[in-house]
Amino acid sequence: MLALSLDMGGTHIGCGVVRDNELLGSASLDSERARSLESLLPRITEVLRTLLKDSGVTAEGCDGIAIGFPGIVDVRNGRILSTLKKYEDAIDLDLKQWAIEQFGLGLRIENDARMALLGEQYAGAAQGVQDVVMITLGTGIGGAAMMLGKLVRGAHAQAACLGGHMPVNYRGQKCACGNVGCAEAEASGWSLPRIVRETPGFDKSSLASAAQIDFQTLFAAARKGDAVAGAVQQHCLNIWAVNAVALIHAYDPEVVVFGGGVMQSADVILSFVEGHVRTHAWTRWGIPRVCAAMLGGNAALLGAVPLLSENLPTL
Amino acid sequence: MLALSLDMGGTHIGCGVVRDNELLGSASLDSERARSLESLLPRITEVLRTLLKDSGVTAEGCDGIAIGFPGIVDVRNGRILSTLKKYEDAIDLDLKQWAIEQFGLGLRIENDARMALLGEQYAGAAQGVQDVVMITLGTGIGGAAMMLGKLVRGAHAQAACLGGHMPVNYRGQKCACGNVGCAEAEASGWSLPRIVRETPGFDKSSLASAAQIDFQTLFAAARKGDAVAGAVQQHCLNIWAVNAVALIHAYDPEVVVFGGGVMQSADVILSFVEGHVRTHAWTRWGIPRVCAAMLGGNAALLGAVPLLSENLPTL
Repeated sequence: MLALSLDMGGTHIGCGVVRDNELLGSASLDSERARSLESLLPRITEVLRTLLKDSGVTAEGCDGIAIGFPGIVDVRNGRILSTLKKYEDAIDLDLKQWAIEQFGLGLRIENDARMALLGEQYAGAAQGVQDVVMITLGTGIGGAAMMLGKLVRGAHAQAACLGGHMPVNYRGQKCACGNVGCAEAEASGWSLPRIVRETPGFDKSSLASAAQIDFQTLFAAARKGDAVAGAVQQHCLNIWAVNAVALIHAYDPEVVVFGGGVMQSADVILSFVEGHVRTHAWTRWGIPRVCAAMLGGNAALLGAVPLLSENLPTL
Repeated sequence: MLALSLDMGGTHIGCGVVRDNELLGSASLDSERARSLESLLPRITEVLRTLLKDSGVTAEGCDGIAIGFPGIVDVRNGRILSTLKKYEDAIDLDLKQWAIEQFGLGLRIENDARMALLGEQYAGAAQGVQDVVMITLGTGIGGAAMMLGKLVRGAHAQAACLGGHMPVNYRGQKCACGNVGCAEAEASGWSLPRIVRETPGFDKSSLASAAQIDFQTLFAAARKGDAVAGAVQQHCLNIWAVNAVALIHAYDPEVVVFGGGVMQSADVILSFVEGHVRTHAWTRWGIPRVCAAMLGGNAALLGAVPLLSENLPTL
């Protein structure tokens, strides 16, 4: 199967042409300062046309377009139900019309973490496994789950994609979602600066003079022995491990795949989470495998073929 | 459809004859001092025979026997995977053989909270709703979920039945399951006495002289103004509400049904949980209904017909 694929990230839009589990060509389009998704559509069209040409294939030869979108999406009717302060005009855009007019192709749109899970399950770290939980650590914490070979979606399309909003510390930090103590409120990109600043000893930490507090800065400072960085890193590892146990108890997976930029420190993260899962998860059948995503930024793009192949009510 | 139904509780075994959503007859069999399930089988057989007779129906007229069991059960192959210190010999018992020999009937066995959910969904508080979470508050906290009209079971038959083992307080109490801060470790029948005793002021509380500390004692003392009881009751309400939000985020239900003996205080519990869900759950589509189970101790028995009607690989 041949497909066009888009991954709408917070700062970039990934564009790809995929044949089955192979990325024939891809390009990244800066979207940081874009005022709307509509304003980007002409450039997206152009980039996809160029990719088709460079890959030596045609739109007519493709089976459809798949889009990974950062928000709550109902693939069954193609509706974007909730955005996260990015591409807010997407709710009212007729993307199906755009796909037909520009490429003569049908379109499916799905939550981006679900797309990444599909990609990793089809061509990456969870290849061939039917029961998978995906946790993407980034600005927020994205989640997705597959049970018995099917994506978990639920009645209102929001099941499993709120994996980062399991309340793991019920008297903890207020979350952007309205809840308290979500994994995301306790250990994600957006919540990290406040947590670091509120850690005792912050003013004497090397992080006090850092231009930006992100996971890369944090893990680097911890490696250099900074006590505040070390304590916060440990806190984040705890939260991610507990989040993994919550999702293991919820979805009964064989494999938990961690993705996101912070997985550059996969060694530290995986060994801690693995140990915690081994001692804390209630899984009499055995121990779920904990691993890092393999496809990096291409995971969601490679989710295109499994998404388009799925037996769904309508395109 | 006509069926025989068993609900194996910690202290009693419920026995019933059901026709569709109607209980034709039922009886309860004391199992508190039973040394094994095998030793109880002759009495169970006898009780079921009497119930059949009293109901004016025959075993030949029945479509099967359904059993709700307190443990992890794989209905697909009829195997009990894990017991909870009760009926431990059940793992090696050939219950199918018993059902055929004694009644000439096929048998299906399922986790008891899942059976209760089936009953409430078929004939009780969640009648006709396709997306339901059930939380049973008792000695432990049982869980079950139905998504898009199907029970959530997962790869190893343990999905959703660990709903009471969502870690909601990751630095909290050690749980019997090996995890830390599970809802069950924070607010269930078995964990309650320790929590009460560790509450500051306990020695001056009316609970210090109580023969037994259970939810009935706790809620009664709180109503009379006992400060320790009030504080612990509030703690339990918090935990149950947070647990509900975790399961709403996991399974995307329309309805959350609370069951168990403590629902005698349904007014206090539901109004608190409802308020918390309204303000804390991330559900753009609307607000999940929170309600009390309607069928009480008969819920699992009334799950028989939906369980036996399910399209499963083998009986």
